Amino acid sequence: MKCAIISIGTELLMGQVVDTNAVYLSQRLRELGFDVLYRYTVGDNDGRLTQILDEAFSSVDLVITSGGLGPTEDDMTKETITAYMGDTLVEHEPSKQALMAMAKERNHPFTKNNLRQIMMPTRATVFATDVGTAPGFSLKSSAKEIICLPGPPREMKTMFQRRVRPYLEQYQTDVIVYKMLRIFGRGESRVETDLLDLIDRQREVPDPTIATYAKDCECSVRVASKRHTEAEAEAALKPVVDEIRSRLGEWIFSENDEELVDVVGHKLIDRGITISSAESCTGGLFAGAITGVPGISAVFERSVVTYNYKAKMEELGVSGKTLEEKTAVSPEVCRQMLDGLYKKTGSDVCVAVTGNAGPTADGDTPVGLIYVGCRYQDKTVVKEVLTLNISRDWNRHYAVLAMLDTVNRMIDGKPVPLTGGKGHNWGSPSQR
Amino acid sequence: MKCAIISIGTELLMGQVVDTNAVYLSQRLRELGFDVLYRYTVGDNDGRLTQILDEAFSSVDLVITSGGLGPTEDDMTKETITAYMGDTLVEHEPSKQALMAMAKERNHPFTKNNLRQIMMPTRATVFATDVGTAPGFSLKSSAKEIICLPGPPREMKTMFQRRVRPYLEQYQTDVIVYKMLRIFGRGESRVETDLLDLIDRQREVPDPTIATYAKDCECSVRVASKRHTEAEAEAALKPVVDEIRSRLGEWIFSENDEELVDVVGHKLIDRGITISSAESCTGGLFAGAITGVPGISAVFERSVVTYNYKAKMEELGVSGKTLEEKTAVSPEVCRQMLDGLYKKTGSDVCVAVTGNAGPTADGDTPVGLIYVGCRYQDKTVVKEVLTLNISRDWNRHYAVLAMLDTVNRMIDGKPVPLTGGKGHNWGSPSQR
Repeated sequence: MKCAIISIGTELLMGQVVDTNAVYLSQRLRELGFDVLYRYTVGDNDGRLTQILDEAFSSVDLVITSGGLGPTEDDMTKETITAYMGDTLVEHEPSKQALMAMAKERNHPFTKNNLRQIMMPTRATVFATDVGTAPGFSLKSSAKEIICLPGPPREMKTMFQRRVRPYLEQYQTDVIVYKMLRIFGRGESRVETDLLDLIDRQREVPDPTIATYAKDCECSVRVASKRHTEAEAEAALKPVVDEIRSRLGEWIFSENDEELVDVVGHKLIDRGITISSAESCTGGLFAGAITGVPGISAVFERSVVTYNYKAKMEELGVSGKTLEEKTAVSPEVCRQMLDGLYKKTGSDVCVAVTGNAGPTADGDTPVGLIYVGCRYQDKTVVKEVLTLNISRDWNRHYAVLAMLDTVNRMIDGKPVPLTGGKGHNWGSPSQR
Repeated sequence: MKCAIISIGTELLMGQVVDTNAVYLSQRLRELGFDVLYRYTVGDNDGRLTQILDEAFSSVDLVITSGGLGPTEDDMTKETITAYMGDTLVEHEPSKQALMAMAKERNHPFTKNNLRQIMMPTRATVFATDVGTAPGFSLKSSAKEIICLPGPPREMKTMFQRRVRPYLEQYQTDVIVYKMLRIFGRGESRVETDLLDLIDRQREVPDPTIATYAKDCECSVRVASKRHTEAEAEAALKPVVDEIRSRLGEWIFSENDEELVDVVGHKLIDRGITISSAESCTGGLFAGAITGVPGISAVFERSVVTYNYKAKMEELGVSGKTLEEKTAVSPEVCRQMLDGLYKKTGSDVCVAVTGNAGPTADGDTPVGLIYVGCRYQDKTVVKEVLTLNISRDWNRHYAVLAMLDTVNRMIDGKPVPLTGGKGHNWGSPSQR
């Protein structure tokens, strides 16, 4: 089924809020095997909404709107759409009863504005509200169908999940199954080159589809198949995913679209491996990231963020002589940070980082030069990374990922590439 | 000038990425006094892009696209748009030279794909790239104008700011000047109540406009005036901003839309005030945030992230007895962390945090209960905060802001409210 999504609200066009509803709906519709051909954003303006409806229905069968169902006077969506579909609004008794009961329970007055919210088209299939006060509805007219949902994301998502999704399953003829292979340490253009024959083959065999995506410091390969059943789609995916894994397995950290920090965090928790970190240029971001994983307190012990020489010497026993001779951004200092951290914590995994995140170069140390050290079960590596140096934030983010990647490889007993970045295996900037 | 924004990319329609470009462009165009009537999202598909261009140009004068300028074969945007505007593509020599120089500098091969990126319409005004490899351009045909920008947000934003904005100023007839007053510690509904008479007055006096916005853990008041000259707009803003400041000044940390971390970081750097932190529930996020400010290494000394009891005792000298009797989430432990941190570092500002970020309550300690301690010039405060507990991430983010806010008040010699959150002065959740 071909669909379009219309997000309604002047605040969207002014850029005051980010439209997460459209993203959510895109994902859910795609999972149902529907094709989203267009998304539109329009203000609270009858004429323009009507024009967009004309445009949308010239190429799709189903339009889903969000927003414009609120109780205030600038929300004219329902009136416009009902008229467009050749229907009229009447009080919807079950919605009225529900809203009055809710008002009573909350000791809220039932206002005239609330009454506007329970006016529904006579032919509508009404979607009751579980969160908020605005019911949604579906309305058909010959081959066209429009589904109107409230704008507040929590209301919209709850209604979609509980009411609209089951309703839409009647139209489902195909199912899309996909794998998202997440990659660190190899840039998008390099990955694309590795897979070029497979990507090009889509011209003859259009399913499964293969596409590469770059995001900050990382990239992904999405392999998707649209078939009548989940089993058929899975079967179609398998040989392609196997082939990609045989070429790029070394760089793939997840086949299920997980974040690297979650992959590493869950392994540490599941295996009961304790970890501590010593950070310089990342300034605590590694610890901040890993402590975002719920349950990590069972294994994460501590981090020392040693930003200046004094802190490195006092907290980690780094030698002042080494700092003077080699500077803080050196493999020697990284190793001493690691040794000091292990001595202090005895954690199963110790990971350290020092580098220059910029924006200014420090003597001979280029911006983006980073050393990552990791110790696990008496093995120690110190790895040199030169990032693309897109920005200070980029460099810091890359350094955190390089730390996570190193830990991930060490605890799995896999080899750690001892250099990274340097114009060959960095991640390319986000292709949004 | 009437505009439309088209975001191009199949990944957008699939919901794999959030379209932050459209939001950014909406904001910037609005500042220039342009009216954004529509936003469209379309996949990498020639026919549908052409259809959207027809639709858009039926009601607007200027279309701005982002995305589809990448080097890979599914990026056909430039070809489609050039043909639509009745032009053809040729190699753009200055862009070619620039790209070759960049490739050489980075020791990157100059590929055939790169060549695709420097093909430009013959009549184009080319916008050089400062970040990334894809130049943008403007192309006119009779009364229509289209501006094509790259999709990666950092590339797009840099190009807009440095190249496109100055270009667009030629069309500017009005100027919008605004002040964004940033607030922490007082929620949006409370702020709205405080300003209700001013907000309501807009019905009679529509300029300046006043609007409140909630973002995660914070809120803002935007006051904007659209006039023929900047001076007129500034003059119109002043009395309104003065009035808002007189009511809410205590909670406003920036009048120029700065982040709280930047406000605090710059004050510390400018005044040469050194700082160290001791973190528990925030797991390094405070240090990670403050070290994101360029130049902070002059004053930021160290952070210890003490996640378990042992780390708190060893690193900060917290008493085991206090931990057992009061638990880690207590004002007593927060104060001992602070004392230990000062003893260890002697930094001018010491700031400590302990709390329960969730997701699960720990004995009698509710999720979202946080203690923030700060010491500056022999003054010490320990503040209790109960967040809205929207999520683990929310709680951690709120705790970092509460730390920054406390530091900001202490170094300015302002009083620190000793409780926060608790259903009255928290930030409300993001309204999508």
